[in-house]
Amino acid sequence: MQSSHAGRERRPSATKERGAPPGASWIYGRHAVAAALANPSRRLRRIVAARDAEAELLPLLAAARADLPPRPEFVERAALAQLLPEDAVHQGMAIAADPLPRQELRDIVASLPASGAPHVVVLLDQVSDPHNVGAVLRSAAAFAALAVIVTEHGAPPVTGALAKAASGALETVPLVRAGNLVRALEQLKEAGFWCVGLAEDADQTLAALDLPERIALVLGAEGGGMRRLTRERCDFLARLPTRGALNSLNVSNAAAVALYEVTRGKDG
Amino acid sequence: MQSSHAGRERRPSATKERGAPPGASWIYGRHAVAAALANPSRRLRRIVAARDAEAELLPLLAAARADLPPRPEFVERAALAQLLPEDAVHQGMAIAADPLPRQELRDIVASLPASGAPHVVVLLDQVSDPHNVGAVLRSAAAFAALAVIVTEHGAPPVTGALAKAASGALETVPLVRAGNLVRALEQLKEAGFWCVGLAEDADQTLAALDLPERIALVLGAEGGGMRRLTRERCDFLARLPTRGALNSLNVSNAAAVALYEVTRGKDG
Repeated sequence: MQSSHAGRERRPSATKERGAPPGASWIYGRHAVAAALANPSRRLRRIVAARDAEAELLPLLAAARADLPPRPEFVERAALAQLLPEDAVHQGMAIAADPLPRQELRDIVASLPASGAPHVVVLLDQVSDPHNVGAVLRSAAAFAALAVIVTEHGAPPVTGALAKAASGALETVPLVRAGNLVRALEQLKEAGFWCVGLAEDADQTLAALDLPERIALVLGAEGGGMRRLTRERCDFLARLPTRGALNSLNVSNAAAVALYEVTRGKDG
Repeated sequence: MQSSHAGRERRPSATKERGAPPGASWIYGRHAVAAALANPSRRLRRIVAARDAEAELLPLLAAARADLPPRPEFVERAALAQLLPEDAVHQGMAIAADPLPRQELRDIVASLPASGAPHVVVLLDQVSDPHNVGAVLRSAAAFAALAVIVTEHGAPPVTGALAKAASGALETVPLVRAGNLVRALEQLKEAGFWCVGLAEDADQTLAALDLPERIALVLGAEGGGMRRLTRERCDFLARLPTRGALNSLNVSNAAAVALYEVTRGKDG
């Protein structure tokens, strides 16, 4: 099942990447651009900014960690917008960069310290909206989760929209693509993780669980929740204490609340 | 300062509302459409669905609460998409509806029971992204908040994108437009609410506060946080226990976590 994209993130359809060198994708927006510049693993291909954003870009460039960042191109805002998807909130700056090196779950698990603060990973089962995946990455960074794991198929490619929603977290939190989510859960269990699936129909709340130190939080797709096989592999099912007619949160909001719950008061 | 829109929600620019009767806006997506149909306050003008969504739409229509829902029009998916903004995730159904009657903070406050579970309202200071406002409405519904209050200016109009992100919550949680957020805070204080502003630089966490029964949660714009005057009117400032380089959550995720924190374990 070796895919032609092995070794690199899956990239978005080439049609959206006007003006990006082959294989590269646009990253836009202040936070996303700043984080990509600060990430030594990013290979930068082009830096394009609006003339009126020069003063804002230069300090970010000065902090760039890449060996040889390309010389920035300053253009009119309209010319910048032309390079990017319609409605892209670019805040005056964009970079074309190669995808990050592919990250593997086994490497992340192998590098864990033996104990300490809670170690949390988030698994997204068939979550397809790039804004949601990006927002989950952002929350994962804010609550110091180890990684966000998505499925090889069904999850969105790493587009500028995803990177923008992640607000820089794409550079700091590994986004792992698992060929098989059930296998990923087994790998995590072998490494001492307990798998907690969020399900509206669970009997107990997440707060009521006596949580261990290594936790894999599993969230399902926006509509249907976890797939049956994923759900069956969870050690526990838990719900969030929502109520009222609309008892289902947006998946990124559910992830944020769950991350908050499993890490609150456990930092020491 | 009476505006020409008094009495009705501000509506989006007419150019986006192809095929909607004058004054009406499109609402699309399964949950948003179902909730609008079930809302007796909605005046429905057109119901348009893809032919392949007929089986899904009919039970929703049967549950419709409006006096005289218009006869649904079944069309090809492409024809439905033509009516809606590009990239609208319509799930095969859309309705054109008049804006909801304008809701006023004083009416919401006046109808509160004297005591009981915590009463929470959410105030958004200059949050401009319709997806974020919609997602906050959805979380407000899930955690039984009384209302979401936005500014008359600076907040997004009620578009289909906002309604879609709210996933039906637009019909159940009052979205109040306040001409002056400081005045709204004063009104809430007079009604016994304590105003808690979320700020990254606050000394204490939200969980550490000894929270009263009536809480107004104030969240600032995506970039700059609360405006100074808003911040100064808060009784308390509190932060969420995020850490790492990216210490700021997406505003809708921050709202979800805050709503969870102030309502958890306090339902009884």
